[in-house]
Amino acid sequence: MKLWHKDIPHDEEASSFAAAGDREADRRLLPYDCTGSMAHATGLHAIGILTDDELAALLEALSAIREAALQGETLMAPDDEDCHSAIERILTERLGDTGRKIHTCRSRNDQVLCALRLCYLDAAEGVVDGVLAAITALMGLEERHGSVAFAGHTHTRKAMPTTVGDWARGYIAALRDSVSLLEAAASPLRSNPLGTGAGYGLPLPTDRALVARELGFSKVDENGIYAQLSRTKHEKVLITALGAVMYDLNRMASDLVLFTHPDFGYFNLDPSVTTGSSIMPQKTNPDILEIIRGYYGVIVGLEVQAATVAHNLISGYHRDAQLAKGAVFSALDITRSSLSMAARVLRTLAVDEARCAAGLSPDIYLTEKAYGLVRQGVPFRTAYQQVANEYFSSLGKKEESI
Amino acid sequence: MKLWHKDIPHDEEASSFAAAGDREADRRLLPYDCTGSMAHATGLHAIGILTDDELAALLEALSAIREAALQGETLMAPDDEDCHSAIERILTERLGDTGRKIHTCRSRNDQVLCALRLCYLDAAEGVVDGVLAAITALMGLEERHGSVAFAGHTHTRKAMPTTVGDWARGYIAALRDSVSLLEAAASPLRSNPLGTGAGYGLPLPTDRALVARELGFSKVDENGIYAQLSRTKHEKVLITALGAVMYDLNRMASDLVLFTHPDFGYFNLDPSVTTGSSIMPQKTNPDILEIIRGYYGVIVGLEVQAATVAHNLISGYHRDAQLAKGAVFSALDITRSSLSMAARVLRTLAVDEARCAAGLSPDIYLTEKAYGLVRQGVPFRTAYQQVANEYFSSLGKKEESI
Amino acid sequence: MKLWHKDIPHDEEASSFAAAGDREADRRLLPYDCTGSMAHATGLHAIGILTDDELAALLEALSAIREAALQGETLMAPDDEDCHSAIERILTERLGDTGRKIHTCRSRNDQVLCALRLCYLDAAEGVVDGVLAAITALMGLEERHGSVAFAGHTHTRKAMPTTVGDWARGYIAALRDSVSLLEAAASPLRSNPLGTGAGYGLPLPTDRALVARELGFSKVDENGIYAQLSRTKHEKVLITALGAVMYDLNRMASDLVLFTHPDFGYFNLDPSVTTGSSIMPQKTNPDILEIIRGYYGVIVGLEVQAATVAHNLISGYHRDAQLAKGAVFSALDITRSSLSMAARVLRTLAVDEARCAAGLSPDIYLTEKAYGLVRQGVPFRTAYQQVANEYFSSLGKKEESI
Amino acid sequence: MKLWHKDIPHDEEASSFAAAGDREADRRLLPYDCTGSMAHATGLHAIGILTDDELAALLEALSAIREAALQGETLMAPDDEDCHSAIERILTERLGDTGRKIHTCRSRNDQVLCALRLCYLDAAEGVVDGVLAAITALMGLEERHGSVAFAGHTHTRKAMPTTVGDWARGYIAALRDSVSLLEAAASPLRSNPLGTGAGYGLPLPTDRALVARELGFSKVDENGIYAQLSRTKHEKVLITALGAVMYDLNRMASDLVLFTHPDFGYFNLDPSVTTGSSIMPQKTNPDILEIIRGYYGVIVGLEVQAATVAHNLISGYHRDAQLAKGAVFSALDITRSSLSMAARVLRTLAVDEARCAAGLSPDIYLTEKAYGLVRQGVPFRTAYQQVANEYFSSLGKKEESI
Repeated sequence: MKLWHKDIPHDEEASSFAAAGDREADRRLLPYDCTGSMAHATGLHAIGILTDDELAALLEALSAIREAALQGETLMAPDDEDCHSAIERILTERLGDTGRKIHTCRSRNDQVLCALRLCYLDAAEGVVDGVLAAITALMGLEERHGSVAFAGHTHTRKAMPTTVGDWARGYIAALRDSVSLLEAAASPLRSNPLGTGAGYGLPLPTDRALVARELGFSKVDENGIYAQLSRTKHEKVLITALGAVMYDLNRMASDLVLFTHPDFGYFNLDPSVTTGSSIMPQKTNPDILEIIRGYYGVIVGLEVQAATVAHNLISGYHRDAQLAKGAVFSALDITRSSLSMAARVLRTLAVDEARCAAGLSPDIYLTEKAYGLVRQGVPFRTAYQQVANEYFSSLGKKEESI
Repeated sequence: MKLWHKDIPHDEEASSFAAAGDREADRRLLPYDCTGSMAHATGLHAIGILTDDELAALLEALSAIREAALQGETLMAPDDEDCHSAIERILTERLGDTGRKIHTCRSRNDQVLCALRLCYLDAAEGVVDGVLAAITALMGLEERHGSVAFAGHTHTRKAMPTTVGDWARGYIAALRDSVSLLEAAASPLRSNPLGTGAGYGLPLPTDRALVARELGFSKVDENGIYAQLSRTKHEKVLITALGAVMYDLNRMASDLVLFTHPDFGYFNLDPSVTTGSSIMPQKTNPDILEIIRGYYGVIVGLEVQAATVAHNLISGYHRDAQLAKGAVFSALDITRSSLSMAARVLRTLAVDEARCAAGLSPDIYLTEKAYGLVRQGVPFRTAYQQVANEYFSSLGKKEESI
Repeated sequence: MKLWHKDIPHDEEASSFAAAGDREADRRLLPYDCTGSMAHATGLHAIGILTDDELAALLEALSAIREAALQGETLMAPDDEDCHSAIERILTERLGDTGRKIHTCRSRNDQVLCALRLCYLDAAEGVVDGVLAAITALMGLEERHGSVAFAGHTHTRKAMPTTVGDWARGYIAALRDSVSLLEAAASPLRSNPLGTGAGYGLPLPTDRALVARELGFSKVDENGIYAQLSRTKHEKVLITALGAVMYDLNRMASDLVLFTHPDFGYFNLDPSVTTGSSIMPQKTNPDILEIIRGYYGVIVGLEVQAATVAHNLISGYHRDAQLAKGAVFSALDITRSSLSMAARVLRTLAVDEARCAAGLSPDIYLTEKAYGLVRQGVPFRTAYQQVANEYFSSLGKKEESI
Repeated sequence: MKLWHKDIPHDEEASSFAAAGDREADRRLLPYDCTGSMAHATGLHAIGILTDDELAALLEALSAIREAALQGETLMAPDDEDCHSAIERILTERLGDTGRKIHTCRSRNDQVLCALRLCYLDAAEGVVDGVLAAITALMGLEERHGSVAFAGHTHTRKAMPTTVGDWARGYIAALRDSVSLLEAAASPLRSNPLGTGAGYGLPLPTDRALVARELGFSKVDENGIYAQLSRTKHEKVLITALGAVMYDLNRMASDLVLFTHPDFGYFNLDPSVTTGSSIMPQKTNPDILEIIRGYYGVIVGLEVQAATVAHNLISGYHRDAQLAKGAVFSALDITRSSLSMAARVLRTLAVDEARCAAGLSPDIYLTEKAYGLVRQGVPFRTAYQQVANEYFSSLGKKEESI
């Protein structure tokens, strides 16, 4: 069904192009649209559009549709334009004129916005849980091996000694930062867009605060132009926050790929998170870490998609904006699964104390040596130059003696 | 089956993460891997690894697998690591030791590269066909309405008169540029990577030129490190070329969205490529054009993905590189379908001669007026200033007289 | 001067490449590094590294250097590696061994991080001021013309009536969102990195909370690995927030470019914010709005720079990270100047009430007509279809009668 | 001077914003605009707009201006809108009415396009020279150390033996690919846009083929709409090609940073391309390689800028398009200087044969061992599994015996 069906011919190939990529997304969105529609029905009842019986019938039907969707049932018919049309069609098939009333006081624009916000918020909570699980895994590593010293690097060169605990705490702090960012990105989504219609309000006043409460939101989008402008913008910022989490994992994975290289051997990966080669019998490859690492580049691209589908356009909804939805879904899924695998890698990570100790070469203690002079009153720069000169001339001598 | 299966435990959730997103891509790649493997088998036969009978058996089996895949049959078993492993498993099930020989003298790295190149080249040809169809549609428009004058714009302001023919020829020239770029992007893909192994060659010499001929390629990748370095790089450049096509369509769609706005009315869209609103009864929206337009932003993001999954990594294959594959497939599909819809929009586009003429306001002829003075010998800048001053003071007078 | 100067030869062309692009940035950073160094000196005094006299001398000298820098004096010598080296050189020239002590208990890594945070926070405040000025300009527009109705658009098609006030409030709400995001992005910058050294702490304990207070920060970065990981990550998120502001301006500029097109004429730009053509005498072009609009694409690219210079690298500082600095500076400058020009455009914007009214074509009231039926008890979808069918058959008749 | 100056007030702050960032670019563009204007003058003479004397005077003056610009003289006055206006102003000051004729039969739009193409082509040639120098440096390395074997890696794990020669040849092949791409990107720039005016032609016919010859171009842009559409599109593709070069260098730099890590020690950097630490006396950091590496991310961002400043806009010139110019200039400069430094690093690179040999651990020969069995007639997969099982059980025994 198309909500706007008029007596004009329509081309099915064009319809399919227009929906391209959205069938999958709509399956995901449908239960959240039921939740949004239930709150909306309550609002329609409050202003007398729906009778008590009509409200009860709609709530029951919407709840049943949501349940069926969550059970994996396919509810969209081949010629339903989208999940929103499918729901209105089913309601109308089941409830007649009552179904024809559900779209009073809303447009698909505010309806979609509402369903997306509910869906994104739910998934973002899942990501936060995933971050907490990764933090727990880091804490476990700290507990097991926190005091083991190994060579801290700068410029991919040994710099000064650090410890497994310090390393774990570094990533814990980074992930906590990312959670704060995720919360900031989610915050404007906790606002009721229903009642802003297509961006220019509705001819009938509704009780928007009541609907907000039903949705579990504490505020309403006062302005419809804002509501529509916010769409890809909020989506883009949400991907940024997910990208921050993925950045943390990217750097962590980079550490683990290198420090498990047999020539370093500070850490060892559990065989269960490695794979092999089709040709080289000896190989155990860190594919899992590489996928986590590579997904960061993927998410940067998704962010660019959300950032660029709708700029240079005038205000008001454009169909282009819907293309950001898939980018958000991909980013959420990538982040969630990467966190889960990162936690698994960390939980099964072995620390090789002997190799860690062997990696602490003498040059890594030269800063400490310079500070020994500082403690005796030598100005730091003077101490630094003295230690440096000694070190480099000893290297020179070593070379000469060869 | 995992090609590298050893007697070590493996985690299925980790496997699934490592394969994430590739099941779909592998379905698409499988027939091309059969083609690549057939050429490879011919090469193995040439150096005596396969007997005549073994070669015949492999060619027949690979051809049958390819056929089955093209018919839509599902060939990958749940525990096949990828389509390449699936093919080797099936060959071994059917042909025993002969199947166990197919992976001689290759690694999955050169095998995948070969299958991807065949697949990309095939799809790129389809895109070129799509461009040609769009060009044909532009030529049809030119033939039907080429001489109709309308207001050419700069800075989204009326500038000088142009014609429908000029407009169509502009996009034809742009699309031809993009095809040249696509050809430049495809050119390095027409080279045989088989025999470069995992990037470091193979212990047994093969006849790589023979295999190249079987693949329809005229050259071979001489260097394995190059072959592996080229992977995401070539993919990125291919998306750039597809992005060039999409850029042409983006600007064309932007023109059509604006010039079909009822306040301009130069052109009219066929109802079959428009949609309606769920709330506003009067609306006919240019969704198809908006999707075409929006896909440009999507493709820019895909390009960023391919550009950033593998940089900052040392040479040699990394699992991260495989993430670029999905980006290329999406870009190919988006471009192909957008071209098809753009051709449809153009074929059904109506030109409103009266509205075009009405849009040619007097100010659009002022450049011509200045050139009238130039023809009488007035230096251009003097002529320009004279005409400008007359125009702006007449505007001033008009305002004063109100 | 190079802080790490040893008795080894060094290549000046290489030095210049290594500094590439940073001379300009360093001029900007230098005063903030003085501020950071003053707080650091206080910390060194607290642990007894500096005497009362040495502290006083350093504070005075650093204050003088800062003042000179703010007056536009060039302080970096041609062979100073960067602004940090320049400051240490000047201090050493002026104060001898006291100058050689300033770098005790810090590395250039935490020093730069501190100066950058101070600099970014200062500039971000300026951006917030700019946003507030733009909001004030929007409020002024609302006050002058808030009740004027004009055609609200969706899909670049007339949709429903809106007002100048609604339009202004939409962008005010969007900008307020962006300020919240900017505050979230700035929040982790208000933390003292001094004392984390090169990422692995320092052999001498300092009073980091004291230094934090001197810097006006309420917390300290507890972990050095985190501090270094945060660098490009925080910079990237800061650009995202600036990009959100620019996105608001991009959409606003897009509205104004179209709605000041003479065929719409809802608004008129003041001549002072337009330019002309070199060839077409009549033209007044909205260049200012186009630059504001175009800067959004620029900032998306800057964001990608900060997002991709340091991923796939192991933890610990890498020189690559410094390349993000220029991206942040550009983003800050672009945003600040665009806000200033946007405010100017808005303050001088004329609203043409007659043209606004003329644009309210009858079809824009059809939603209202459908709601008239809803008020009489007709289910919305039935009312919608009735109004749509009447409208489209009347269009058909009009066409037939022509 | 503003070419479009009329009797309307203009705001200098607005002018400065509108020019923002272009003063620098214009200094660079000015000599090329002189070259373009000389060809244009020849064309004007051919159609009788200029007399022989006027042509001679203009050619002499333009040549002098170009020379002065190349000598570093500042030619733009503070109130010149851009370099094009400056040139017309100077010509008019020096030659009176003859100067007022130079802008006949062109618009600033085709004029800028012409100057940009000349400038880009010149700089691209410099990049190709830079690539050739880098290739020469790789060939030198191959000559000096080509036969030295070291451990080829996949997945950042030792895989199979390779040689310094193979490594060098891999990057030579990659760079050659990038040059082909650069040539494909440059090809459409070798076309004369002069005569397409503001995109809609000119009221006076000119001899465009003659002007093309004067410019050294073999063809003309037949269509003005195409010419304007091509602008950011060609610029974007040019940056892509530069990005391909930088990608090669990024991967090469990544190799060198890791393989010069003291724990590998395969290669050693010359001290002249390393820097030190401000705190750690022992450090020699590969800053040069890190900058080369990091510039790749910068160029990806520049590419996104050129890709996104002008999409979603209708055809015809928009001021936004000019923002791509700075991105191209930055990309050209980054690539040129990175190539120069990469060549220097390679020319001074030392290969440590002993460390290379020491890195060839026994496991790296297991593929060879499996092929030994293949040579005896064992099917490859069987041979692989036998070797793998032996290897992993020997590892197990080693662990048990500890």
